[in-house]
Amino acid sequence: MIPKSHPRYESLMKREKIIEFFERGILAKAGLIAHGRGEAFDYIIGERTTEYALKSIKAAASLLILSKKPVISVNGNTIALAFNHVIELSKLLNCPIEVNLFYKTEERLRAIKKFFDENKEELEGIKINFGGSYIIPNLESNRRFVSEDFYYSDTVLVPLEDGDRAEALIKMGKKVITIDLNPLSRTSRVSTITIVDEITRAMPLLVRYVKTLSRKEAEDILKSYDNKKNLEDILKYMSERLAKLKL
Amino acid sequence: MIPKSHPRYESLMKREKIIEFFERGILAKAGLIAHGRGEAFDYIIGERTTEYALKSIKAAASLLILSKKPVISVNGNTIALAFNHVIELSKLLNCPIEVNLFYKTEERLRAIKKFFDENKEELEGIKINFGGSYIIPNLESNRRFVSEDFYYSDTVLVPLEDGDRAEALIKMGKKVITIDLNPLSRTSRVSTITIVDEITRAMPLLVRYVKTLSRKEAEDILKSYDNKKNLEDILKYMSERLAKLKL
Repeated sequence: MIPKSHPRYESLMKREKIIEFFERGILAKAGLIAHGRGEAFDYIIGERTTEYALKSIKAAASLLILSKKPVISVNGNTIALAFNHVIELSKLLNCPIEVNLFYKTEERLRAIKKFFDENKEELEGIKINFGGSYIIPNLESNRRFVSEDFYYSDTVLVPLEDGDRAEALIKMGKKVITIDLNPLSRTSRVSTITIVDEITRAMPLLVRYVKTLSRKEAEDILKSYDNKKNLEDILKYMSERLAKLKL
Repeated sequence: MIPKSHPRYESLMKREKIIEFFERGILAKAGLIAHGRGEAFDYIIGERTTEYALKSIKAAASLLILSKKPVISVNGNTIALAFNHVIELSKLLNCPIEVNLFYKTEERLRAIKKFFDENKEELEGIKINFGGSYIIPNLESNRRFVSEDFYYSDTVLVPLEDGDRAEALIKMGKKVITIDLNPLSRTSRVSTITIVDEITRAMPLLVRYVKTLSRKEAEDILKSYDNKKNLEDILKYMSERLAKLKL
C-alpha cells in the first residue's frame, strides 16, 4: 500500500488503477506506455489544473452545452481513470458513449463489456455503442468503424485520442474536444478544443461547468476562446516551470 | 510494420522492442509505464544526444576507466534496449553485470536467464550476478540484496535506476552513473554523473569513449565536470526548446 502522505500519492494511485485495468484486459500494452508519457508531461505541468486548462475546460463545457448531437468516445485508459465522470457527463448531456479502441480485439471488448455489466446500475438509461458499420473517411486504423450515433454527431469528446483519428474527425466537419497532457501532440494541435490536463482532474470540472453554465454564458465563452493561443500559453507556462524548477 | 520513413521510426521501434520483452516476461508492467515517461522527456529533448548529454557521457566513460571495481547493474528495460552495448562495455572494463530488479519474481528471473542462455556466446567470459546475500543499507525494497561484487564495487553504472536505490548507493560511498531522461528525477539529482539521454543513443557513445580516452584525458575530463551545472544546462535547454517549438 502507498501511504497517503507520499508526495506523489495521487499519481501512484492512478498508476495502480491503470495496472489493475490492464490486468483485467481492458487496457492495451500501448495504454500503459501512453500513461507513462502522460505522467511525464503532468510532472512538468505541476500535477495541477492550470488557469489555461481551466479556460479550455470551460470552453469545452460550453461547446458540449450548445451541441445538438454530442457523443463521448472512450478507450481503455479513459474507462480505467474516468469511468464515473464519463457516465455523469453522458447523463447530463443525454448523449451516447462510444467505445472505440485502437488495439481492438474480441478479448478486450469482452473485458469491457464485463466491466460495464458489473456497473450496470450506474449505466442505466445510457446508450453505449461498440462501433458499427459506419466508416470515418481518411482513416486506416480499426478505429474507423463507428456507430450511426457517432457518425452523425456534431461534437465528439475524445479524451486521450490518437492523432490520426482526431485529424479525420476534423476533416469530417466535426468539432473535437480532447484531453491530452501533451500540448505538442498532433491531437492537441488539430482539435477544436484541447484540454491540457490530467483526465481525472479535468473530467469533474467539465461536469461541473456543463451543469452550471447557461447557454448565454456558453456562447460568450466560446466567442472569446482561442485554442491555438491557449496551447501557446500552456507551452510558455511549461517552459517557465522547467526554467524555475530547483535541482 | 512501421515504415522506415515514419518521422518517429526510431521511437516506435524501441516501443515495439519494449513490448516484445514485456511479452517475454523480462519487463514488468511498471517498466512499460516508465518507458512512456522516458518517451515524453525524449520528445522534449528532441530525440537526439545534446551537447550536455555528450559531456556527461565523456565524464562517465572517464570515471569508468579510472574506477578499480566498476559494475554494471541492469533491469528489464536495460536488457530490452541496450543488451549488446552492456555486454560490450562489460568486456571492455572487464567488470561483472548485476541483474537487479525492482519487481523481482522467480518468473522474471527465469525469463531473463532464458534470454541470457539464448545469447550465451556473446556472454562468454562475462560474470553475471543475480543478486546475493549482501545488503545495501538504507534501502527497503527487494533491490537491497546484491552480490559480493556489487557490494564491494567502487562505481556502479545503473541505467534507468530508481531514486531510493540511487540515494542508498551514494550513502554507501559509491560513485553512481545513471542514464535517465528526466533531469528532475531523484536519481538524476543524487547521482555522481547523470546522463540525460536515451539509453540506446547513450550506450554506444559511452562504449566509444571508454575505448578511446586515455587515463590522462579521463582525469582532466573528470576534473572539469560539474554534474549539477550540467543538469541545470539541460533544464535550460529543454525550457528553451518548449518555448521555441512551433504549434
